[in-house]
Amino acid sequence: MSGSTIIEGNSFRQDSPEALAGLSPEDRTLVERRKKNLGPSYRLFYRNPVHVVDSSGSYLYGPEGEEFLDAYNNVASIGHAHPAVVEAVREQMSRLSTHSRYLQDGILDFSDQLLATFPEELDQVMFTNSGSEANDLALRVAAACTGGTGVVVTSEAYHGTTAAVSAVSPSAGGEGTGPHVRAVPAPDSFRYRPEDHDGRSLAEWFADNVRAAFTDLASEGYPPSALLVDTIFSSDGVFPDTSVLGPAAEVARELGAVFIADEVQPGFGRVGRDFWGFARHGVVPDIVTLGKPMGNGVPVAAMVARSGVLATFGSDIPYFNTFGGSSVPVAAARAVLTVIQKEGLAEKASVLGDRIAGQLQELRQSAPGVGDVRGTGLFFGVEIVEPGTTTPDSARALDIINTMRDMGVLVSVAGPYNSTLKIRPLLSYTAVEADKLVGALSAAVSATGR
Amino acid sequence: MSGSTIIEGNSFRQDSPEALAGLSPEDRTLVERRKKNLGPSYRLFYRNPVHVVDSSGSYLYGPEGEEFLDAYNNVASIGHAHPAVVEAVREQMSRLSTHSRYLQDGILDFSDQLLATFPEELDQVMFTNSGSEANDLALRVAAACTGGTGVVVTSEAYHGTTAAVSAVSPSAGGEGTGPHVRAVPAPDSFRYRPEDHDGRSLAEWFADNVRAAFTDLASEGYPPSALLVDTIFSSDGVFPDTSVLGPAAEVARELGAVFIADEVQPGFGRVGRDFWGFARHGVVPDIVTLGKPMGNGVPVAAMVARSGVLATFGSDIPYFNTFGGSSVPVAAARAVLTVIQKEGLAEKASVLGDRIAGQLQELRQSAPGVGDVRGTGLFFGVEIVEPGTTTPDSARALDIINTMRDMGVLVSVAGPYNSTLKIRPLLSYTAVEADKLVGALSAAVSATGR
Repeated sequence: MSGSTIIEGNSFRQDSPEALAGLSPEDRTLVERRKKNLGPSYRLFYRNPVHVVDSSGSYLYGPEGEEFLDAYNNVASIGHAHPAVVEAVREQMSRLSTHSRYLQDGILDFSDQLLATFPEELDQVMFTNSGSEANDLALRVAAACTGGTGVVVTSEAYHGTTAAVSAVSPSAGGEGTGPHVRAVPAPDSFRYRPEDHDGRSLAEWFADNVRAAFTDLASEGYPPSALLVDTIFSSDGVFPDTSVLGPAAEVARELGAVFIADEVQPGFGRVGRDFWGFARHGVVPDIVTLGKPMGNGVPVAAMVARSGVLATFGSDIPYFNTFGGSSVPVAAARAVLTVIQKEGLAEKASVLGDRIAGQLQELRQSAPGVGDVRGTGLFFGVEIVEPGTTTPDSARALDIINTMRDMGVLVSVAGPYNSTLKIRPLLSYTAVEADKLVGALSAAVSATGR
Repeated sequence: MSGSTIIEGNSFRQDSPEALAGLSPEDRTLVERRKKNLGPSYRLFYRNPVHVVDSSGSYLYGPEGEEFLDAYNNVASIGHAHPAVVEAVREQMSRLSTHSRYLQDGILDFSDQLLATFPEELDQVMFTNSGSEANDLALRVAAACTGGTGVVVTSEAYHGTTAAVSAVSPSAGGEGTGPHVRAVPAPDSFRYRPEDHDGRSLAEWFADNVRAAFTDLASEGYPPSALLVDTIFSSDGVFPDTSVLGPAAEVARELGAVFIADEVQPGFGRVGRDFWGFARHGVVPDIVTLGKPMGNGVPVAAMVARSGVLATFGSDIPYFNTFGGSSVPVAAARAVLTVIQKEGLAEKASVLGDRIAGQLQELRQSAPGVGDVRGTGLFFGVEIVEPGTTTPDSARALDIINTMRDMGVLVSVAGPYNSTLKIRPLLSYTAVEADKLVGALSAAVSATGR
């Protein structure tokens, strides 16, 4: 990182000269206060950081009324400041806010509603405060169920911030992954060629790599425990190919591991009418983890599991989470899920997503630097390459997202080279916002052409 | 645990015959739905579980209007459904709810307000969603700062639910503590006698044990990293003696470890006018973790540290927490801290706490089964013993809290024998509630006499 101000793609150290240069005096003061009070771990998005004070629907607003179309954030997925969630939280907070060791109706009504969105095999839910805590819990449940410790993930995976979850997140940086972890390459449908791999399909190759990783782990004293995968490979660069998870999960189970589907990013209708990323692959996981969009900004997350998988952990270990499953987070989650269901947002994500995908494919055909367009529902990866090749053009990708930011449209980058534009239109988009997004992307691609 | 329905003191498996026996048909249905949907990890308080639907100030209410005086819960510490927090959250949610990689004023205004409650050496704050996440982060920061891995805790400590934090929580049960962890006995001021320990004071003995634990860890390949202590030893049985932490922290630092003060339970004025538990001991920790009462039920927590201690972690590891430090949790925390400060609740906790302590001492003098009364501010431990001895009477302690529950007053138990009544009147108490609490305790002690 020496000399560079770029950390993990679109995150900048707040004390970088570049980040400070273009700021207004007011924003510079904020950056300096951040540095003083919050310390060096905190990062900012964009070379020219975004200052926000207000929001509504699909937009964020700056202090001077600057408008930013949100095409990235996945917490306010159903729309910023959604009034149904605001009201549900206000009502619950003014009535009752306590934990799950007293009997309450809300947690049970919501668990009924949530579990009904899953295949019947996934029949129990435990609540946490973050996707990190959900994945942390899932790893403990997997260990208790399998007796194993070996975990296989993908090579740019990000599963969260706790010590245990950072250790299975190759892209988290810092301490690195643990000795009980092996990373396999993500199923990069853009760059994979069967002829380079004995004619094996992408799915066969991915499953073979999972098998080899577990075998290697077992040989070093870490018997199989879990295959942990983001079901749209968000941090790896967004790979929606639906052929890969079925065979990989089968291999994991054959070797004694459980399959954990991390739905923190793809879940809750983001991938379209299938609602959960794993459902697109026709596979039923052993454990599923949920998070980000679940509470529209109120911290709430969960782990859903097969009761048989949960049994050993549950009977041996008296897990308690003070806020997890408490009144207010549950009320927020219930309001969000109800909005998604009543407004048919998952179905709408498929319809509008197909429209956007078509426009992005047109852009790809006209712009040689756009190498690939991938996606499902309202979750896209747009690959920026050296024209006519599969060689990533990370610098241009970063230029594009910063140009779009200056045009008032917020997207980011992902993948091993930070060359994949990560684009997530909110589920609250109409065709107007969709056109605005695609227009800004086209303009930024043109403006950064070389 | 075979044959017993008691898990960790006052927590009962929801399928125990005892827990099901006394229930109304409606509550029995809730318990059965919990068992089906939430799985076996979930527990319930009390032999006869409490069903709550409403709350106000210092009271929780059941579906038939049953009134429960809350003398235990530490989340709604400033009072249930506090209108100032409800309004602050409603206002923030209807305006903006996003993360810390955009510039926002709220997180900075609150960090100024929060850091001002700490000694100036503790100058930076990072936000998380739970005390567990805060302690998990603190352990990572300690490891980065010291290069060590060895952690010393107390023998009934509870620091949270993540894998890393469970591994330093002897009372969490389950997988047990890790090989990098040593537990020292808590400074049990009730049972400790200098003459049994070469005439050493409680503080000397405690510090010597900390030294021996670190030395032992180092000899097994785990160099000193952190002394992690709840500053009122909540789970160990509530030990407010202020002589112990200074010498112990000094030993930890001399050996190269940092001192982490877990303020999740004692913090935010609960211990009285000193505001933080560590402040009573006249020691300035290297890292402090906060949680439970911080957001009045909105999940929010934090880690406060000396910038020098945070530097290595912060420069090497790009920690990001999606909800931690985001708009809504910060707004809730800001409202809570403002209420505490404006209403002088920490000072009031000292004044009312002294009054209650006096009444509890009178009870102790008249009831031979009450062996000890300890506390500070509005945090008390009342030791139930075989009359005239220091021998714990766990069964009677459990009878007392269940009797009080049936009288409409909620308290719980703690300590290695579950023989310490853990009593935490809310900071919203007036003398009326204080008298009601002490009256109920007196009656329950009488009713359970043998």
